[in-house]
Amino acid sequence: MTDDVMGDVTGLAGLLYEFGLLKRYKRTGWLVAGVRDPESIAEHSFRAAVIAGMIAKLEGADAERAAFMSLFHDTQETRITDIPYIGKRYLKAASNEDVTADQVRGVPAEVADMVGEAVAEYEEKASLEAVCARDADKLECLIQAVEYREQGHQNVQGWIDSSLAAIKTTTGKRLAEEALSTGTLEWVTRVLNGD
Amino acid sequence: MTDDVMGDVTGLAGLLYEFGLLKRYKRTGWLVAGVRDPESIAEHSFRAAVIAGMIAKLEGADAERAAFMSLFHDTQETRITDIPYIGKRYLKAASNEDVTADQVRGVPAEVADMVGEAVAEYEEKASLEAVCARDADKLECLIQAVEYREQGHQNVQGWIDSSLAAIKTTTGKRLAEEALSTGTLEWVTRVLNGD
Amino acid sequence: MTDDVMGDVTGLAGLLYEFGLLKRYKRTGWLVAGVRDPESIAEHSFRAAVIAGMIAKLEGADAERAAFMSLFHDTQETRITDIPYIGKRYLKAASNEDVTADQVRGVPAEVADMVGEAVAEYEEKASLEAVCARDADKLECLIQAVEYREQGHQNVQGWIDSSLAAIKTTTGKRLAEEALSTGTLEWVTRVLNGD
Amino acid sequence: MTDDVMGDVTGLAGLLYEFGLLKRYKRTGWLVAGVRDPESIAEHSFRAAVIAGMIAKLEGADAERAAFMSLFHDTQETRITDIPYIGKRYLKAASNEDVTADQVRGVPAEVADMVGEAVAEYEEKASLEAVCARDADKLECLIQAVEYREQGHQNVQGWIDSSLAAIKTTTGKRLAEEALSTGTLEWVTRVLNGD
Amino acid sequence: MTDDVMGDVTGLAGLLYEFGLLKRYKRTGWLVAGVRDPESIAEHSFRAAVIAGMIAKLEGADAERAAFMSLFHDTQETRITDIPYIGKRYLKAASNEDVTADQVRGVPAEVADMVGEAVAEYEEKASLEAVCARDADKLECLIQAVEYREQGHQNVQGWIDSSLAAIKTTTGKRLAEEALSTGTLEWVTRVLNGD
Amino acid sequence: MTDDVMGDVTGLAGLLYEFGLLKRYKRTGWLVAGVRDPESIAEHSFRAAVIAGMIAKLEGADAERAAFMSLFHDTQETRITDIPYIGKRYLKAASNEDVTADQVRGVPAEVADMVGEAVAEYEEKASLEAVCARDADKLECLIQAVEYREQGHQNVQGWIDSSLAAIKTTTGKRLAEEALSTGTLEWVTRVLNGD
Repeated sequence: MTDDVMGDVTGLAGLLYEFGLLKRYKRTGWLVAGVRDPESIAEHSFRAAVIAGMIAKLEGADAERAAFMSLFHDTQETRITDIPYIGKRYLKAASNEDVTADQVRGVPAEVADMVGEAVAEYEEKASLEAVCARDADKLECLIQAVEYREQGHQNVQGWIDSSLAAIKTTTGKRLAEEALSTGTLEWVTRVLNGD
Repeated sequence: MTDDVMGDVTGLAGLLYEFGLLKRYKRTGWLVAGVRDPESIAEHSFRAAVIAGMIAKLEGADAERAAFMSLFHDTQETRITDIPYIGKRYLKAASNEDVTADQVRGVPAEVADMVGEAVAEYEEKASLEAVCARDADKLECLIQAVEYREQGHQNVQGWIDSSLAAIKTTTGKRLAEEALSTGTLEWVTRVLNGD
Repeated sequence: MTDDVMGDVTGLAGLLYEFGLLKRYKRTGWLVAGVRDPESIAEHSFRAAVIAGMIAKLEGADAERAAFMSLFHDTQETRITDIPYIGKRYLKAASNEDVTADQVRGVPAEVADMVGEAVAEYEEKASLEAVCARDADKLECLIQAVEYREQGHQNVQGWIDSSLAAIKTTTGKRLAEEALSTGTLEWVTRVLNGD
Repeated sequence: MTDDVMGDVTGLAGLLYEFGLLKRYKRTGWLVAGVRDPESIAEHSFRAAVIAGMIAKLEGADAERAAFMSLFHDTQETRITDIPYIGKRYLKAASNEDVTADQVRGVPAEVADMVGEAVAEYEEKASLEAVCARDADKLECLIQAVEYREQGHQNVQGWIDSSLAAIKTTTGKRLAEEALSTGTLEWVTRVLNGD
Repeated sequence: MTDDVMGDVTGLAGLLYEFGLLKRYKRTGWLVAGVRDPESIAEHSFRAAVIAGMIAKLEGADAERAAFMSLFHDTQETRITDIPYIGKRYLKAASNEDVTADQVRGVPAEVADMVGEAVAEYEEKASLEAVCARDADKLECLIQAVEYREQGHQNVQGWIDSSLAAIKTTTGKRLAEEALSTGTLEWVTRVLNGD
Repeated sequence: MTDDVMGDVTGLAGLLYEFGLLKRYKRTGWLVAGVRDPESIAEHSFRAAVIAGMIAKLEGADAERAAFMSLFHDTQETRITDIPYIGKRYLKAASNEDVTADQVRGVPAEVADMVGEAVAEYEEKASLEAVCARDADKLECLIQAVEYREQGHQNVQGWIDSSLAAIKTTTGKRLAEEALSTGTLEWVTRVLNGD
């Protein structure tokens, strides 16, 4: 790390505090659905990144790249919040690329470029890794919806349907089908049975 | 994806539900520190993965590899829970490698290998990427401690001190110093001032 | 109530469920400030309406009108969410009047007009009642900030300063000064002392 | 505002802090029903006031008056708490008028009178506006019960039944029927379908 | 257990569900003090019972008797709620003995007598065990206040002062002094240092 | 209390703060089951102690002894946490007797012995009081599971089944059957009907 880079460490520390907001911001859609204390954006992004890596691996894509993009797929929401579906009719947001450019201003150039490129590739939806990362976003939402349903929430079907319809890869589709036909705690039973 | 692989999709869907537990499990140390409703393991892991990528980039390591390892650095806690520091005197846990091996049993082999190798490299602490990911774990904890302090919690100094002492890379150390000398909301002021 | 009006009761019941979202949506600014589980929009609107009536009374305005307008000053946020200050740089929202017009479509005309007129008057900022209601919004925020500060939160000064600066009426200013120079629990002491 | 009035501003600021307690006090009945983290009194009062205005409008009464009374219908609970139905057998509370008189002691006389008169009219149950405001209290409870039921709670039928039985106006009854025959999220579907 | 007793098992199961409410009811005083999500009555009663046993042991009293009484010292609050200090001016409650008598109606006689006698002895304040149990109630409150203070809450001094003033036994007083002069996490340091 | 004993008061105050952690630690099993904000260990222990006293009374055992043991049956979890069932495959914990011995080090000897003996008797499972206290632990879990089920949670059957199977006393079994065949709010209906 050169001295020049070091001059931007203040900006980078600030960005890490900014991303802390993703732990406090809740996923708005679940509030619409009636979940009073839903998951945070950070929680969604964590499992989405894990899923992105797995789908990519099974689709023959670069798993680490897909997971990496996935980490940043909602980081813009520190500035534009998580706009629910219904809100898109009333709000015109800056592009995720532009928001990201603002966020990484004052951050060491290598890091700024790295994040900007990840966001750009994700938004472009062209590379196989981007497709896998986008499927992961949808599949994570579907899985969370099933979890909320088993916790009693009766209004999540819309989220399941729209997530399912948006999944593109074979792996993503197969995993969604599986997730819909299994209980969320069957894994515990399998472990306890030694399967 | 071959048919054989497809046979393991049930196992993989189960693993995704298992990882959902990381959204519900809280970081135990903060409960000790007096935070009644602290962050989840998933929230910590999300920001840790982002930080790992950034430290790695600035240290000249593979950012995506570091972030990827970071995603799995606490996933074993679905089975062994997040044992607080004081608990390590009373509990002997299976190794993270062994727990991971159990977790990925019944998962498509490519995914099982991918996760197992990421965990093994992280636990070995040898590669530069592993060192960066381990620093990210500590730095994330330090940053969260500062955030809790600004929310009123007066018992987080021990977490700041021990995290700081464990950080190894130059980048990690510089970021920790910065984080300790900045307020957690200064980034907002900079944005509003157009800096 | 005529039969025609009755045909719109479905729409009105829907609007009441829509407003239920204001109980689940949190005030976003407090999340930025570091409050993990802050008040809802409904909670803010309740006290704002009470304050609006009181300021209006002391300013010689129509208290009930000011309180009534105040009830609807944030109801548009079911569709556009509570955009934090920093978000206004990145989001262009439909006007509150337009959002309201959409919300009351299919609602009995008398109610639709009543709500639309209240929102329009509030947004116009011209009538004394509107000025009082707008002061109430700011004063409520200031008072909540002081309450959060006494609960430990150290990052609320910005909210106090900007609220204070925006208050226009003499009554609002005097109440803000009082609120800043009193502890939030002094009323309990006065009651217990029989003052 | 005269100087004399100004001398009571301390008391008024204290009352605003006292009303802050309505954000922290939960509606006790829901705790009985099994809701671990239910709505606050402030949240209930907000939607009740909105409903009161709407019912009054459709019943040909003064909407602003009904809404205004509704704002204060539970403010006494800062001192007597929200006594659940079962508690009424064991607790004898001061009248709401007497509690209000104590609350507004030391508050500017115009405000004290305004609040006292609103409470008195509500408690007298005689004016059409009071009847509408009382219906709003019941209808709000019924609607919230339906929302909790869709979130999984299976013990809210008693609250629905007793609320329904207590509603007096034609408008209130029609709205209750509608609320019971609609899903809580149908409004979203209508918006997305452009209805 | 005779057949006759068995006939009352329904009543006893009902009482156990009734006591479940003590997990959901929060300690009202802390809500006044500004704690948004405070401890439940059950949580307070648990530690109070433990403390009662310890104080009694050191005061030469029957530790098990003191702890047992302590378990039931707030169980009446399922019916009369936890009335905050300020509320006592406005609410006249049935005696704890009378409430208890109602609660244990329909419960096997041996259990009814056992609970009734524990409550009566506690309310009589005569036996040394009752004095110890009452001190435990106060000391528990003081300790919790210190914990909330270290979590940032600045309005708990009144609770500390009034609790301290009410403690009667030498042991209770010594423990209160100790609790006030120690940090809430010093026990962790001692354990980690091997003290 | 002698001077020597007084020297250990610091240790005892520390233990009371340590037990405060039982209010913050959640019962892990419920997190596995999908309850996002479940009861604390303290809440469980409170009702378990009450139940232990009642079962013991009806079984002809010493009710106060059973309740007292019950208070300490999970206090070791401040150091070893509440290990979920699945975790027992991966974690080897120190014995509860050894953990307790560590906890009461530096505490007045009479108290240390009292707690140590209560834990030892509970762990030995030999005395009738210990059997009753152990049944109370299971019955409390079963009752809580039913409560969660009525709140919407669909994954608690495993907890009901395993708790039921482990109950040994006639009273415990009868109460479990009753609890499973009654609604959790039937006691309210009985009270309101004057039964």
